[in-house]
Amino acid sequence: MLEICQFGAGRIGQIHAGNVAANGRARLRYVVDVNASAAEALAAKHGAKPSTTEAALADPAVKAVLIASSTDTHADLIEAAARAGKAIFCEKPIDLSLPRVDACVKVVKQAGVPFFIGFNRRFDPNFAALRAALQQGAVGRVETVTITSRDPAPPHPAFIATSGGMFRDMMIHDFDMAHWLLGQVPVELFAYASCLVDPMFSAAGDVDTAVVVMKTADGVLCQITNSRRAVYGYDQRVEVFGSAGLLQAGNVTPTTVSRWGADGVVADKPLPFFLQRYAGAYRAELDHFIDCCLGDAKPVVQPEDGRIALVIAEAAVESVKRGTPVKM
Amino acid sequence: MLEICQFGAGRIGQIHAGNVAANGRARLRYVVDVNASAAEALAAKHGAKPSTTEAALADPAVKAVLIASSTDTHADLIEAAARAGKAIFCEKPIDLSLPRVDACVKVVKQAGVPFFIGFNRRFDPNFAALRAALQQGAVGRVETVTITSRDPAPPHPAFIATSGGMFRDMMIHDFDMAHWLLGQVPVELFAYASCLVDPMFSAAGDVDTAVVVMKTADGVLCQITNSRRAVYGYDQRVEVFGSAGLLQAGNVTPTTVSRWGADGVVADKPLPFFLQRYAGAYRAELDHFIDCCLGDAKPVVQPEDGRIALVIAEAAVESVKRGTPVKM
Amino acid sequence: MLEICQFGAGRIGQIHAGNVAANGRARLRYVVDVNASAAEALAAKHGAKPSTTEAALADPAVKAVLIASSTDTHADLIEAAARAGKAIFCEKPIDLSLPRVDACVKVVKQAGVPFFIGFNRRFDPNFAALRAALQQGAVGRVETVTITSRDPAPPHPAFIATSGGMFRDMMIHDFDMAHWLLGQVPVELFAYASCLVDPMFSAAGDVDTAVVVMKTADGVLCQITNSRRAVYGYDQRVEVFGSAGLLQAGNVTPTTVSRWGADGVVADKPLPFFLQRYAGAYRAELDHFIDCCLGDAKPVVQPEDGRIALVIAEAAVESVKRGTPVKM
Amino acid sequence: MLEICQFGAGRIGQIHAGNVAANGRARLRYVVDVNASAAEALAAKHGAKPSTTEAALADPAVKAVLIASSTDTHADLIEAAARAGKAIFCEKPIDLSLPRVDACVKVVKQAGVPFFIGFNRRFDPNFAALRAALQQGAVGRVETVTITSRDPAPPHPAFIATSGGMFRDMMIHDFDMAHWLLGQVPVELFAYASCLVDPMFSAAGDVDTAVVVMKTADGVLCQITNSRRAVYGYDQRVEVFGSAGLLQAGNVTPTTVSRWGADGVVADKPLPFFLQRYAGAYRAELDHFIDCCLGDAKPVVQPEDGRIALVIAEAAVESVKRGTPVKM
Repeated sequence: MLEICQFGAGRIGQIHAGNVAANGRARLRYVVDVNASAAEALAAKHGAKPSTTEAALADPAVKAVLIASSTDTHADLIEAAARAGKAIFCEKPIDLSLPRVDACVKVVKQAGVPFFIGFNRRFDPNFAALRAALQQGAVGRVETVTITSRDPAPPHPAFIATSGGMFRDMMIHDFDMAHWLLGQVPVELFAYASCLVDPMFSAAGDVDTAVVVMKTADGVLCQITNSRRAVYGYDQRVEVFGSAGLLQAGNVTPTTVSRWGADGVVADKPLPFFLQRYAGAYRAELDHFIDCCLGDAKPVVQPEDGRIALVIAEAAVESVKRGTPVKM
Repeated sequence: MLEICQFGAGRIGQIHAGNVAANGRARLRYVVDVNASAAEALAAKHGAKPSTTEAALADPAVKAVLIASSTDTHADLIEAAARAGKAIFCEKPIDLSLPRVDACVKVVKQAGVPFFIGFNRRFDPNFAALRAALQQGAVGRVETVTITSRDPAPPHPAFIATSGGMFRDMMIHDFDMAHWLLGQVPVELFAYASCLVDPMFSAAGDVDTAVVVMKTADGVLCQITNSRRAVYGYDQRVEVFGSAGLLQAGNVTPTTVSRWGADGVVADKPLPFFLQRYAGAYRAELDHFIDCCLGDAKPVVQPEDGRIALVIAEAAVESVKRGTPVKM
Repeated sequence: MLEICQFGAGRIGQIHAGNVAANGRARLRYVVDVNASAAEALAAKHGAKPSTTEAALADPAVKAVLIASSTDTHADLIEAAARAGKAIFCEKPIDLSLPRVDACVKVVKQAGVPFFIGFNRRFDPNFAALRAALQQGAVGRVETVTITSRDPAPPHPAFIATSGGMFRDMMIHDFDMAHWLLGQVPVELFAYASCLVDPMFSAAGDVDTAVVVMKTADGVLCQITNSRRAVYGYDQRVEVFGSAGLLQAGNVTPTTVSRWGADGVVADKPLPFFLQRYAGAYRAELDHFIDCCLGDAKPVVQPEDGRIALVIAEAAVESVKRGTPVKM
Repeated sequence: MLEICQFGAGRIGQIHAGNVAANGRARLRYVVDVNASAAEALAAKHGAKPSTTEAALADPAVKAVLIASSTDTHADLIEAAARAGKAIFCEKPIDLSLPRVDACVKVVKQAGVPFFIGFNRRFDPNFAALRAALQQGAVGRVETVTITSRDPAPPHPAFIATSGGMFRDMMIHDFDMAHWLLGQVPVELFAYASCLVDPMFSAAGDVDTAVVVMKTADGVLCQITNSRRAVYGYDQRVEVFGSAGLLQAGNVTPTTVSRWGADGVVADKPLPFFLQRYAGAYRAELDHFIDCCLGDAKPVVQPEDGRIALVIAEAAVESVKRGTPVKM
């Protein structure tokens, strides 16, 4: 049994804790949260104990940590856990500052512990199947990657200020997806961004709608579109076009029911948001992390992957600011 | 140029006349209709002349007739045309009485003229492709055929009385489809029929909703469902299941447009009725008939086919009346 | 916490035990199985103890039993559990003999314990959503129900002999589905059945391919088709047609990925079999049973439902034997 | 009857001539082509006469011209026809040089004749229905337009040299589509282009793969992707995303047949190329032109539209050359 300490008892923390319980090869030992009652409740539910960062990391029985606390705590926790020799699963991002990310990755590498950044989409069965097909040559040589990613509704205004902006907070997932599907880091990008959904974004110096194009050294192209609001639900689609065809991964719907009426044929809209769409991905991701900790698998996400996605996000921010393409 | 005399200048007659014009290898010479002005108008549109049955059939320049007049005129016109040595295209059915059909087919065979009953669905690109795949072994050995056929709305009450009833007027198309897809004539059937759509059907001694099951000598099964009303349009679907899989032909829609909104994903409902759904089938069917007349093709519909479909329809009527299965 | 004794530690028993563990409001106390090591292993996995029927039922801490043992043990266990005052969840069928079922249901009613027959499909999200829409009037008055149900591959030959035959073992699910969707028990049916898939079925006096039509007292029609083999996976579809439209529940696929190539657009085939397709249904079903035991819900499956499905299955067997329609 | 002179008797000329014949309100009077036998053959098929440019334009009976000759003849023929007072339908483009286009449009405006550039996609039933829904507010305020356009196979090498390059020859259709769907001319664009399909493109100074992003004055964004080769057929799709949802127009397939087998569910790939996909669009477009000439409709394509699409194409060429965004 892998004994885990989890940081963060909020919404996503509850998901992870449930997945640990369902895994059968791991056990939650501690829950740490600034909100003591949340930590207590989640710990109680899973036979764990509330604790402090120091105490938990000092316990040699703890072999792995699961960091699902707020973004601004990630880098410090990663470093502390690495120095304590724990395997690390951390929700994205490592940090919003690239130098801080670099420092953090360095510490992790020195410690030599398993480190795993939670790019959940890589574990979505649809995207995972698409990529597996890609690697088996289903479309031949890749020529164009198209990623569509739209949230159902804007985040809370309070979140926007601390989010790092749409490129670092939201499109970063798509940058990782692009990197993962292209099999290489693009060398340059260009971004257009607008505030069309809600003026609160521009008031916070942010945008809510964007398109980005990227190219690789060998001329493969990628296009990404984001919006902070889609009335029909969480829109998460990918297309990879190549010399031998196209692979498409569509949205996931709650059911396959359709109603045929005088007004048309009405099918389900996509699942509402990431907790529903990526429920299976979260489970698979944690199972994989546990496998890695127990020596049964090698991590499919590398420490550098989180850094690369942030580097691309920074380039996109810069491109919008300067109105020109930016090299990575 | 194949010179054609057409009987009937109504709705379906206009379709056929237009398809003759578009064919390029045939020409409408005469139009015959009890409604003189309709005949004149249609003739004028296509550079033809209105005429009488006798005069038209006596003209040796006329090599083929196209019978699109009312059902009760079909058998007489077929016999007259056959005796005059003309190739014959006749809208289904030959007649609603089986003895009359037998007599008629006999005359046609004696005359040795090409004879072609208008089972338009065999020429629908979807069903034609399904059957071609079937014949290429796409599903292996056929085990079950499922046919769904629903009209958008009940016919005019006046029509019901003279229609011969739902089995002879409507499901007869599905019986031909079953025969065509099974590649053999079923040996027995059982039918349930109800009046659920409109009491005018039962008032006329007819039904508006039915399911029929059939079996062949080697145990292959077929199920058919009919309704006289579907608010979502003309529902025409076929599934053939076999040892190596399933072939499905779905409805045809006006466009591929879908709208994704808060209320779901809304796509087009099927094309409204047979004139739209089978527009291409009518064209292909007539082109094939013209090819046959000009010696460039062999008819894919045989004189017996019309008879077989009617024999099955009679069995269905009998099954409902007796409440038992009926042998064909 | 609801303490449960589970009978049966086989494939489906493992599913149920896992769902009990995931539920959080119930706990497995005993596992009983003639295979002692299977009982032990499953008990160990979930912190339960292996036990005997007598000991387990004698323990007043046990409030509910979960019967997932072989079919021939169901009726005896149901009666014993009912007499011991336990709430009962039993995998279908109660028994393959109607008199035995009747006796069993009588005992359960006298005991007044919650009794729940495992018609898992009622808990499938797709069929559940279809029925909810139906009850909200999505298709108006129901006129025709169409059920397609095909297993991916024949069962083990040894199973066929004890299965009760395709109608009692397999189509019984569809009879319950029909009953559930129609909202009434059909009054008559007619069945055609063949052995087309594998001669081992006819050697065992069984069939592997069938179509059944049914009608209700008010003329609503239902058609069902079954096959013991579909090379493309588990085919589980339902259509309900009515005065205001059609509701369709399609198959469920592993992913939404499609590959567009020179050979066409290739999408996933359906999930392989019931363990995959109905994984969510099993979970929802058990959660509902636990809710019922804890007084938080009223059972949506009634003791009579199992009996009704078997009565219809008997009628189908009789119809094939006699070659005539049979009244229920 | 509208008497028409057609320039060009090639592949697309034959389509137009057939559509004139099918229209019923117009008649081909002359066919002009440098290839005399092609002109003669096409004229003979439709009861027209071969002629010369001068003679045809001098005939006062000719009220309209249909220009389907090679691109380099368009501008001269447009000006000559305009000066002769004929209504003009011209295949895109007016010319590959913007100054030449400007001069030409000026002549047409001075002449005051109806002028119609053949942007066939505006008449495609799918795109037309999408735009109609858009204008009825189906997605609220437009925020992002996504256009996918891929040819099935590269053009003949000889064509590439004279084509004007992918942006002017191929993506120009998508620029018109973007302009039409956005309802405004974008103010700036950025383009990435590569040669990934065939080195013959780069040898000719051309590209075969490109992505373009554009923005309007009010921040609405548009993304376009093109490829000169798609093994699965002609890929022509559009998505418009807005405040109230998304409209999607998909590809069109020959049939609705799918095959469910052990290897998945296989559906038709899209129609092969523009002659098939836009057959209905060509017909609708010509019918509309004839209506305009006869005073029954106002042109939905304006002389400026051809110019605008070319201006955008020029900007895309410039963007690739300079590696920066370019203002229109």
